[in-house]
Amino acid sequence: MWPDLAGRLVDGGHRLPIRVYFEDTDFSGIVYHGAYVRFIERGRSDFLRLAGVLHADLAAGGYGEALTFAVRALQMEFLRPARIDDLLVVVTRLEAVSGARVVLHQQIEKAGEIVVDARVTVAVLNGAGQPRRLPALARSRMLAVSTPPSGEPA
Amino acid sequence: MWPDLAGRLVDGGHRLPIRVYFEDTDFSGIVYHGAYVRFIERGRSDFLRLAGVLHADLAAGGYGEALTFAVRALQMEFLRPARIDDLLVVVTRLEAVSGARVVLHQQIEKAGEIVVDARVTVAVLNGAGQPRRLPALARSRMLAVSTPPSGEPA
Amino acid sequence: MWPDLAGRLVDGGHRLPIRVYFEDTDFSGIVYHGAYVRFIERGRSDFLRLAGVLHADLAAGGYGEALTFAVRALQMEFLRPARIDDLLVVVTRLEAVSGARVVLHQQIEKAGEIVVDARVTVAVLNGAGQPRRLPALARSRMLAVSTPPSGEPA
Amino acid sequence: MWPDLAGRLVDGGHRLPIRVYFEDTDFSGIVYHGAYVRFIERGRSDFLRLAGVLHADLAAGGYGEALTFAVRALQMEFLRPARIDDLLVVVTRLEAVSGARVVLHQQIEKAGEIVVDARVTVAVLNGAGQPRRLPALARSRMLAVSTPPSGEPA
Repeated sequence: MWPDLAGRLVDGGHRLPIRVYFEDTDFSGIVYHGAYVRFIERGRSDFLRLAGVLHADLAAGGYGEALTFAVRALQMEFLRPARIDDLLVVVTRLEAVSGARVVLHQQIEKAGEIVVDARVTVAVLNGAGQPRRLPALARSRMLAVSTPPSGEPA
Repeated sequence: MWPDLAGRLVDGGHRLPIRVYFEDTDFSGIVYHGAYVRFIERGRSDFLRLAGVLHADLAAGGYGEALTFAVRALQMEFLRPARIDDLLVVVTRLEAVSGARVVLHQQIEKAGEIVVDARVTVAVLNGAGQPRRLPALARSRMLAVSTPPSGEPA
Repeated sequence: MWPDLAGRLVDGGHRLPIRVYFEDTDFSGIVYHGAYVRFIERGRSDFLRLAGVLHADLAAGGYGEALTFAVRALQMEFLRPARIDDLLVVVTRLEAVSGARVVLHQQIEKAGEIVVDARVTVAVLNGAGQPRRLPALARSRMLAVSTPPSGEPA
Repeated sequence: MWPDLAGRLVDGGHRLPIRVYFEDTDFSGIVYHGAYVRFIERGRSDFLRLAGVLHADLAAGGYGEALTFAVRALQMEFLRPARIDDLLVVVTRLEAVSGARVVLHQQIEKAGEIVVDARVTVAVLNGAGQPRRLPALARSRMLAVSTPPSGEPA
């Protein structure tokens, strides 16, 4: 059904197609590295959306206290350039989920080749910025749409 | 056919659905006004894409000299707020096209209500930043997918 | 005293120097038009800062209810290009201030020439997004550092 | 001398003060993690600027072929939140420089505490996106303003 913006849950992961626009490029002619940080955040948001975990619900207290996700750590390798008008795909996979942290492996593909490889650690914070346990319901929803992450902590 | 990212040409205009992500919001809790400037640029790019006019072709000299579009003037009214996870639609209509300039009327809708109303004047520049005539082929491609703009100059 | 980031109140207006970085450019080789929207917002914020009106104070209820500024209308003309490493100056002048709205005239200069000319209308919103009167103290602080705007409403 | 935007070379490293504006925050109320990616890029650009290595010169062929820096790898830890109006300092230190790659250690401080810790690997590309050796003059200029990086390759 159109509009169809949230990507697809496939093979235990999530695929989000993204178009490169003017705003994503820089004067060197290729995509600005900071744009990929935004792209993989969109991938995580839509992975969560299709799993049934919405930022707006978390912030509105739908899981108890008002909560937001916050990125704790980011590791990225920029392997190939992308350019204006390119069609990219952000692939997101749950790598580990514990009581307090979620680790995701994310790759950005272009015509089947890997442009960016990333690993992102996310935590849950309350409105005062204090770390909170990932709500059990949010956790089970993420796991339900994922290939069981290896070495998954209890 | 999926991915289906470039929107639709309908009723002599163009409609592009856009999702609001973290990157688009600010600490006041709503969408940052500068994000809408990026959203309408995506709308113009995809209007051109479906009309058959690609930034990459222009830049590669596909219309003669290497060319890019540059925004000359921007008028925007911000009428309602939008928030994280919202689904917006950018509506783009050709308002006037002359030898050197293109004027577009753009609106951003949310659930049928107008969030932003904008009028954008775009010019064509060569690689040295000098104004150039809009290539006739690009112009006819834009007109072919548009309701005849009122008072269209020759 | 260093760091000296907030610009200068001079001649009844405000001047904020800004450097062009990678993030501000696009593949056409010049500054992305959306970057200027961010630049003039920085100018307005630092004009307010030197006038003694802080976003953080407004949001924390320092003027009564929690308040934020929201942009209502934006008119911009893009007159000349700017490039990576360029040093720009955002000039901000109060043009009109009423009970509910503030209008600012802003220009971006490069080596004494005008790159962008803008007029911005700003309103005050409470936490629920409802319009509120500009607090009298904030208004008087803005006027105290400005050349009396012509046709200033009561 | 004002404007004084490029920071300071001190203690074998570089310090760049940065103000947090609206554009840098998100609806969770704190600075968006992607904004820090832009902040440390500004730090690297101004470290290079004060070392005498300008992006514009590189791109114009001032070191032979037209060259740009490209980020190859990024490791970031987000340790504390920052908020609107905060004054941050980006500290940049050269960690290793070889013929083809530059590794920088960067930290973002707020009131003396570390908000972000980052390690960035940068390479040099020509206009076709091919890797090139770092020009010897650029390399020696970077080393001249740096504490000798440990284990510096020849």
